[in-house]
Amino acid sequence: MPVEPNIDTLVVAGVGLIGGSFALALKQAGAVRRVVGLGRTRASLERAAALGVIDEAADDPAHALAHADLVMLAMPVGQTVAVLERIAPHLRADAVVTDAGSTKRDVIDAARAVLKGAFPRFVPGHPIAGAESSGADAARADLFRGRKTVLTPLAVTDARAVARVAGAWRACGADVREMPAEEHDAVFAAVSHLPHLLAFALVHELAEQPNAATLFDYAAGGFRDFTRIASSHPEMWRDICLANRECVGEALARYRSELDRLQRLLAAGDAEAIERTFAEARAARNAWLARIESGERK
Amino acid sequence: MPVEPNIDTLVVAGVGLIGGSFALALKQAGAVRRVVGLGRTRASLERAAALGVIDEAADDPAHALAHADLVMLAMPVGQTVAVLERIAPHLRADAVVTDAGSTKRDVIDAARAVLKGAFPRFVPGHPIAGAESSGADAARADLFRGRKTVLTPLAVTDARAVARVAGAWRACGADVREMPAEEHDAVFAAVSHLPHLLAFALVHELAEQPNAATLFDYAAGGFRDFTRIASSHPEMWRDICLANRECVGEALARYRSELDRLQRLLAAGDAEAIERTFAEARAARNAWLARIESGERK
Repeated sequence: MPVEPNIDTLVVAGVGLIGGSFALALKQAGAVRRVVGLGRTRASLERAAALGVIDEAADDPAHALAHADLVMLAMPVGQTVAVLERIAPHLRADAVVTDAGSTKRDVIDAARAVLKGAFPRFVPGHPIAGAESSGADAARADLFRGRKTVLTPLAVTDARAVARVAGAWRACGADVREMPAEEHDAVFAAVSHLPHLLAFALVHELAEQPNAATLFDYAAGGFRDFTRIASSHPEMWRDICLANRECVGEALARYRSELDRLQRLLAAGDAEAIERTFAEARAARNAWLARIESGERK
Repeated sequence: MPVEPNIDTLVVAGVGLIGGSFALALKQAGAVRRVVGLGRTRASLERAAALGVIDEAADDPAHALAHADLVMLAMPVGQTVAVLERIAPHLRADAVVTDAGSTKRDVIDAARAVLKGAFPRFVPGHPIAGAESSGADAARADLFRGRKTVLTPLAVTDARAVARVAGAWRACGADVREMPAEEHDAVFAAVSHLPHLLAFALVHELAEQPNAATLFDYAAGGFRDFTRIASSHPEMWRDICLANRECVGEALARYRSELDRLQRLLAAGDAEAIERTFAEARAARNAWLARIESGERK
C-alpha cells in the first residue's frame, strides 16, 4: 500500500553516504515526492542525480528551497555555519531543518545564531550508522534500518517539527531516541570520538618510530581490528573532535587516569588487580555483545 | 610423496589451540611419528586424544619424555617455570625444547635457570597466530600456514636445535623469522601487548561509569572492532603484560606522550595539526593494509 508522501520537497545539503541514504530510504518508503540536492561540487550532485539518489541538482539555494518543507544538513560538520548562512534567507516559513552531525551542541549553537526566528523549527539529529565508505555511490536505502537515530530537541523546539523529523527517520526504519544535547555529546565522546582519537594516536605514534617498518611487519589481526577506525576520514574526525572538544577532553582525561592506574599496577606487579581489570572488561564487553546479538536476532 | 618423519616423539605441554595446531600440522606434513600430550587436567588430554590431536595422554613426565626428541611448551606463559621444572629431570640428552609464548625474555630467563646444561638446546619461539578461540577443539592443521613464527635464539643456542625447530615450523607452513629476544619483546609490546591493554582499559573505564548502561547502548560498530581484543583471555594477557612489563611500560609511556600531545592540540583548537596527525595515521595504516593484502594474494 503506497504511503501518501508527507514530505513534498526534501532538500539534502551534502549528498554523501548519510544524506544520500536518507533520500533513498524516504523515496523507497514513499514518504517524499521530490528530492533536491545542494552541494559543494556540481560533479557530485550530477553523480547523485544519475544514481537516482536525488531528483534534481540545485546550484542556487533560493531555487532549491522555494518548495522545501524539509531540509537535511548532511555535509561535514565543519561546514555547518556556512551552509546555514546560505540557506537561511530562503527558508519557507513552515520549513523544518534537521541535521545528521555526530556532535550536537556546536550545531545547535550555530543554528541558533544563524536561523534566529526559524530556530524553533531546527531539530538536531544524529543517525548512528557506520560510514566506512563515503559518497553518494555508497548510499543505500537500508542504511538506517534497525539503527538508532538520536534527536536532541531543546525546550524551544517546535513539537510538530520534532514529530516531522522523527516520522521521517521512522520511515527510514530507524529506532528514534531523544536525549539532551549535552548528554548526547558526552555519550558519543566516550564511545565513539575518544576511540577514534585513540586509534589514530596509536598508529601515528608507531609510524613515527625509527623501527616503524618492523613494527608494522609484525602487526597482526588484533592490531588490524583495533586500528580499523584509524582509517576513517581525517577531516571529518578533526571536525568532530574539535566541535566536541570539551567532552572529548573529559573522556580522554578519564581514560588517561585509567592508564595511570594500569601503569602503577604493572610497575607494582599486581597480578590480581590486573587480571580483575581485564576480566571485568571482558565480562562487560561480552554482556554488551550478547545484548546486541539478541537484539539483532529479534 | 610422504615425508620421512624427522621428529620421532613430540611432547606437547598444553594441548590447546597453539600446541594442538602445531601437533596437527606436523602430523599432516608427515613430519612426526608420535605425539604425546602433557597437561594440567586428564580430561583435556583425553579430549585431545579423542580428536586425534595427540596419540597419547601422559600423566607422568618421565614416561612422556623417555623418547621425546622435541618438546613444545604451549601452556600459558605463567606456568613456564613449573612445567620446565617438571620436565627438566627427564629430558633426553639430545632433546630439543621450544616454546610458543608471546614474550621471550622471561621464558629465556626461566629456561636458563631451570634447564642449566640443557639450555643450549632450548629454542625460544613465538608463532604469530590469532587465538580468538581456545582449547584442543579449536586446533587446526592450517593455523600457522602463511603466518610468521619468530625464533629468538641466543649466541649459546645450538645451531642444530634452531634448525630443527625452524624446520618443524616450516613443515607447519609458517614463515620463520629470527630476531633478538629484546627486539621481539619491544616490537610485540608496541603492536600487540599495548593495544590489548588499551582496549581492556577503555572497556573497563566505561563499565565503571555511573551511566555505563547508556554508554554501551550507544556503542556501535567502530567500538566493537576497537574493543574486540578486550574479549581476550584475562589470565593470558595478565601473564603477558607482567612478563613483558618493562617493554609494555615503555610502549605505554610513549603512547601517553602522544595522548598528551593530542590533548594539547585539542585544547589549543589546532585543527591543522590534528588533521595532519589523523591523516598520517590513516596513510600509514592504509599502506600497511595494502602490503598485507598484496602478500595475502601471492
